[in-house]
Amino acid sequence: MALRGAVTRLLSNAKKCAAISNGIELKDSFRTYCQEKLMPRIIMANRHEHFHREIVSEMGELGVLGPTIQGYGCAGTSYVAYGLIAREVERVDSGYRSVMSVQSSLVMHPINAYGTEEQKEKWLPRLARGEILGCFGLTEPNHGSDPAGMETKAKYNPSSSTFTISGAKTWITNSPVADIAVVWAKCEDGRIRGFILERGMKGLATPKIEGKFSLRASATGMILMDEVEVPQENMLPNVSGLAGPFGCLNNARYGIAWGALGAAEFCFHAARQYTLDRIQFGVPLARNQLMQKKMADMLTEITIGLQSCLALGRLIDDKKAAPEMISMLKRNSCGKSLDIARQARDMLGGNGIADEYHIIRHVMNLEAVNTYEGTHDIHALILGRAITGLQSFTVEK
Amino acid sequence: MALRGAVTRLLSNAKKCAAISNGIELKDSFRTYCQEKLMPRIIMANRHEHFHREIVSEMGELGVLGPTIQGYGCAGTSYVAYGLIAREVERVDSGYRSVMSVQSSLVMHPINAYGTEEQKEKWLPRLARGEILGCFGLTEPNHGSDPAGMETKAKYNPSSSTFTISGAKTWITNSPVADIAVVWAKCEDGRIRGFILERGMKGLATPKIEGKFSLRASATGMILMDEVEVPQENMLPNVSGLAGPFGCLNNARYGIAWGALGAAEFCFHAARQYTLDRIQFGVPLARNQLMQKKMADMLTEITIGLQSCLALGRLIDDKKAAPEMISMLKRNSCGKSLDIARQARDMLGGNGIADEYHIIRHVMNLEAVNTYEGTHDIHALILGRAITGLQSFTVEK
Amino acid sequence: MALRGAVTRLLSNAKKCAAISNGIELKDSFRTYCQEKLMPRIIMANRHEHFHREIVSEMGELGVLGPTIQGYGCAGTSYVAYGLIAREVERVDSGYRSVMSVQSSLVMHPINAYGTEEQKEKWLPRLARGEILGCFGLTEPNHGSDPAGMETKAKYNPSSSTFTISGAKTWITNSPVADIAVVWAKCEDGRIRGFILERGMKGLATPKIEGKFSLRASATGMILMDEVEVPQENMLPNVSGLAGPFGCLNNARYGIAWGALGAAEFCFHAARQYTLDRIQFGVPLARNQLMQKKMADMLTEITIGLQSCLALGRLIDDKKAAPEMISMLKRNSCGKSLDIARQARDMLGGNGIADEYHIIRHVMNLEAVNTYEGTHDIHALILGRAITGLQSFTVEK
Amino acid sequence: MALRGAVTRLLSNAKKCAAISNGIELKDSFRTYCQEKLMPRIIMANRHEHFHREIVSEMGELGVLGPTIQGYGCAGTSYVAYGLIAREVERVDSGYRSVMSVQSSLVMHPINAYGTEEQKEKWLPRLARGEILGCFGLTEPNHGSDPAGMETKAKYNPSSSTFTISGAKTWITNSPVADIAVVWAKCEDGRIRGFILERGMKGLATPKIEGKFSLRASATGMILMDEVEVPQENMLPNVSGLAGPFGCLNNARYGIAWGALGAAEFCFHAARQYTLDRIQFGVPLARNQLMQKKMADMLTEITIGLQSCLALGRLIDDKKAAPEMISMLKRNSCGKSLDIARQARDMLGGNGIADEYHIIRHVMNLEAVNTYEGTHDIHALILGRAITGLQSFTVEK
Repeated sequence: MALRGAVTRLLSNAKKCAAISNGIELKDSFRTYCQEKLMPRIIMANRHEHFHREIVSEMGELGVLGPTIQGYGCAGTSYVAYGLIAREVERVDSGYRSVMSVQSSLVMHPINAYGTEEQKEKWLPRLARGEILGCFGLTEPNHGSDPAGMETKAKYNPSSSTFTISGAKTWITNSPVADIAVVWAKCEDGRIRGFILERGMKGLATPKIEGKFSLRASATGMILMDEVEVPQENMLPNVSGLAGPFGCLNNARYGIAWGALGAAEFCFHAARQYTLDRIQFGVPLARNQLMQKKMADMLTEITIGLQSCLALGRLIDDKKAAPEMISMLKRNSCGKSLDIARQARDMLGGNGIADEYHIIRHVMNLEAVNTYEGTHDIHALILGRAITGLQSFTVEK
Repeated sequence: MALRGAVTRLLSNAKKCAAISNGIELKDSFRTYCQEKLMPRIIMANRHEHFHREIVSEMGELGVLGPTIQGYGCAGTSYVAYGLIAREVERVDSGYRSVMSVQSSLVMHPINAYGTEEQKEKWLPRLARGEILGCFGLTEPNHGSDPAGMETKAKYNPSSSTFTISGAKTWITNSPVADIAVVWAKCEDGRIRGFILERGMKGLATPKIEGKFSLRASATGMILMDEVEVPQENMLPNVSGLAGPFGCLNNARYGIAWGALGAAEFCFHAARQYTLDRIQFGVPLARNQLMQKKMADMLTEITIGLQSCLALGRLIDDKKAAPEMISMLKRNSCGKSLDIARQARDMLGGNGIADEYHIIRHVMNLEAVNTYEGTHDIHALILGRAITGLQSFTVEK
Repeated sequence: MALRGAVTRLLSNAKKCAAISNGIELKDSFRTYCQEKLMPRIIMANRHEHFHREIVSEMGELGVLGPTIQGYGCAGTSYVAYGLIAREVERVDSGYRSVMSVQSSLVMHPINAYGTEEQKEKWLPRLARGEILGCFGLTEPNHGSDPAGMETKAKYNPSSSTFTISGAKTWITNSPVADIAVVWAKCEDGRIRGFILERGMKGLATPKIEGKFSLRASATGMILMDEVEVPQENMLPNVSGLAGPFGCLNNARYGIAWGALGAAEFCFHAARQYTLDRIQFGVPLARNQLMQKKMADMLTEITIGLQSCLALGRLIDDKKAAPEMISMLKRNSCGKSLDIARQARDMLGGNGIADEYHIIRHVMNLEAVNTYEGTHDIHALILGRAITGLQSFTVEK
Repeated sequence: MALRGAVTRLLSNAKKCAAISNGIELKDSFRTYCQEKLMPRIIMANRHEHFHREIVSEMGELGVLGPTIQGYGCAGTSYVAYGLIAREVERVDSGYRSVMSVQSSLVMHPINAYGTEEQKEKWLPRLARGEILGCFGLTEPNHGSDPAGMETKAKYNPSSSTFTISGAKTWITNSPVADIAVVWAKCEDGRIRGFILERGMKGLATPKIEGKFSLRASATGMILMDEVEVPQENMLPNVSGLAGPFGCLNNARYGIAWGALGAAEFCFHAARQYTLDRIQFGVPLARNQLMQKKMADMLTEITIGLQSCLALGRLIDDKKAAPEMISMLKRNSCGKSLDIARQARDMLGGNGIADEYHIIRHVMNLEAVNTYEGTHDIHALILGRAITGLQSFTVEK
């Protein structure tokens, strides 16, 4: 096992460097927490589509929510550390990592990056502690890959200093249970702006989506806004246009790049152990060339994927990263992890469809992970545009 | 649509020829039945893991159970017709097709091929009508791909003219609800023989397997046999050794080769329609080259796969088929259909994980279909042995 | 070998039916000819880029040039027979098959389909005998996949009843050694028409393309036309527009669909024999699972590809085929055969790069075969358009 | 091009750090040399299978032969620098890189690692200057992937203090033109040892292999030894067993891991430029989604492959690398680069088979590169063994 040892060694160096930062130590115990506290809950949570809300509070206690933010009760870690956290959670379940990503990158990040000092002080500490949970409303029923077509409108009412927001968002992680929602809407000047909506506002509904066969341990729903009146102080003033949500998505995609490989690592290790333990035709399944080739392919992609995530994390920490690099690794990690999970499921034969072996759950989860925050194909076109200088999203020249 | 029209035309000729046989007409209405009666039930059946037992009776009425058997109330159709039936059912759900395959190929076929006249007359008409449901016990917990390692034992008791059978079978489609089970056990002379077990026999239990994320509309369980006493007249006398179960499996695999492509066809058509209907960046998704390439690949594999199934069905009808041909097409259809379903799911983006769009269900189902009755890799080695004359299953030379 | 036996059996039935037609028997000896007369010449021909002109005469004697044409000294065989011929030649070399395809489908076919009775009588018998060799000028330096952009012009001169043709064609199989060229040019009315150019006409040059690493046993060059004066009686009167060249291409593509699989079959058989003969780690290479899986994949694709070609040939013979079906199988056969050849080359290890083992030659050849007469991607878009009703070739909606 | 810019930036930092070492500066001009001096020679060298011997002397002058060796006129660079050199040469041609790898890793490295002080002083400075050229004799006609089966024998003659060596080696890069050969032979004690053979020794012949369609710009041949008498002082005393040649191969494989990606980078850039320049259907080919997806895939694999090579180089420099890491990246780089080259060739359409566009040459070259010094499959099994602890090379348990 010299090989995997070395990969681990390399990354554990990075972990150590990254783990201590800004006076708040990111405990090694986070991995322990994931394995000892999350892992035992996940089979039933996934089987019965049950979201354990208390996980958010537990994570808050461990300091892993909004971890890269400086101040406001946040850990202020490096981006490499953020990546390592995402990897540990998603090793257990992509649904749990999604909950965490949404809170950190899609709710806390925009408040921190685009909000006022008052907004930060009001929301960030409570979000960091996991006392309240947030969600992020960008995607609409008719606009999955093309957010520029946004139909949600925000109309300013000078008399009350409020905005009236109407529209619908869908496939929103956390929405049925979230306390607040960062929602993006098109204002009367045609520009897209972000708003913090609070549960209980009149006209706001967050129905759950039923019959979901992916990320079942997290809650997914819609955000329906029928003339919701939002005070002006809930608008994020420091950004307008798609740069706002795209900045959030880049942040989240970086975490996904690490996280998906965590899921892949679990599948690799589980399939390896299964084939070592199971005897067929007089030898362990792992003795077969066809099995070994699959494992060689899996470990290779995991290793080179992780090395690249590490390099990217360091570039982000050095403020030298370009968004296309994140697209590249979000796409690579998700596509490869989905393939790895499928291979692993296949290696388990009939047992591979039972949730107690976990892998079928990762297969289903990674379908969503490969799709959300930019599908595999959309990121191909983002990269293609960066490479050629020519866009091929639309039929315009 | 000239293209698909032609494929349809070609196959519909085959259908017409095949449909009338032995005085019992296989009604065109079978497709109508599948679409009108099965399709509306499947989402909830799959979501809640509910098996509708009445489907078996409905199929019995339509004459599609054990359809290739001559007499005993069976339809006596050609093998091409059998394939077309399997394709229509699996277009709806692989779980339903599994129920049908087990009844037809794994229960009725061995009774017809290896049973006595009394056994045939006793069981076949009731099985053909769907009055009773059967299951097939070959696979054991420790012997998935290697049935020669069978641990289930049958001991003859001369005094009572009965066999005492002990052992465990797992991943048995229909077992929790079946009335009878064709179980394979190793006799004292070291030879494997088949026995018809009946629900209610002492020592027989058929617990359901929980947490299954594939074929959820069919019931899957174990067959636990703790000194079950089986009358001698329930033994199938006309076969011994693995030739018995392998003959059944070949029969079933042929149906799977057709069926899996039916599931793939559904996914192709659903994804095509979805991308035609959904507008992104100002044009239908289907206008994108990346989408069209996926569809071209999908339709190509479906077409050449179906053509080959048709050729194989004719060879079986002419008694010219070799078992390796069935291995080849079972493997090809399952592997390709799984790929097609995954591509289709991806084409639906976020909506692709919702069961109301059906495709995620086919993705999950086809994982099992690609695994059972010989995994993709096992069939590769069966073919490899046929091609080279050298076995590479075991470490023996 | 039951498996391959059965494939052979099936196809040999087709061969027998197809072989006797219109009073001219297509001799079984054609395969013998290919193996005994072409195979020994090919290594040196390919190594030194030497085209053996006499092969055309030999083929003429055997009756395989323009074989589906009725009369004019042609064999008048079925399209299934034409496919079987193409498969046998390409089993030896794609370059030889290209020579034959050009003569049959791209020179004789348009003369027969679009020419006058005088043109047919003048040219077809000599082309059928291989006394003269033809080439086909459609592709231009700037218009590979998009022939509608044609720049070659034909201007009518009423005084002399001639056309003056200027332009350049490139990547023209046979051009450096051809006696005649069927060239497509845009007339003053904007319509594309076909012309028979004859070697020796003033202003006509056919330089060879040097440094080609594919199809080296056939000659490839340009057709440069600097005000070539062509008599009106050399114009093909019965077609105008792209329907003319596209009809020819469809004819040729059908032959390629069969031919490419012939090359793949050679590679499969050669790799199988090599791995059976070569001992490593104490057993034949063929004993390894990794090798057997490759062979299983190869044989599966060859088998289902050939079955589909056979079905297509019968549809063409019955006048029920659509052009998209030909696109589908040209694309499938070429892409799969290229993959098979690459796998086979890999199976030969170091020896796989030496031309004496033939496979590296097929790898290089199939790169061109997968590209010409519609690239793999272009046929994907042709199929995509047929499937969706939406074109995605251009940026227009 | 922010994306590629960043990759370049990252690697150029590494380059700078690596470039200055031990008093001998590895000039930035090496890339310039490759592009200005090697690139113009390669088309004709490859077309006519001509090896330019003077290249070795030129490389010697630039200090890139045996660059990681300390002293003896060698540059003493880091392993990261060695990798960057290999990448630059192979960007031009894998044959040239092979010549350099053999000299550096397979001839100079064993003399340095396993030789006496006298041997080092005698041979290393002349090899470093490129004054003499070496080759490496391990592979035998019957033992490609399994060197343990070695048949070449060395018999000690106490009277003359010489060894008599007989046997045959094949697929030996440089052999027809080499001045010396490091040859591995089995001694009477059953152990494998290394010997330095010199051109002109009686009984030694080095015939060229004809008809090679890969690495045509380098000379490849056999080493035939018919009782060659080799003085004892030409034996490498400090290693015995397969550890000797395997140490050399690991060294070379590391260079190949970098080099192959250099070839891939060339293909990527060439295909990108070609598709930007070529207009079809009114837009540059590069505007097409199908092209952009290919480029996105290519650049992703190049980027993550290079990042991993860089991490591995640093581990080697820190003496923390395991041989399996090298297997992993040799395998990954070669397999991916071959795929990338094939995709690039396809993107060039018909022009892609002409050597003036270079890519077809890389396609042919990388077939050998993916095969030699451990095939793709052999490295899969090496990795599989490291992952599982179970060997699956042989049929023994």
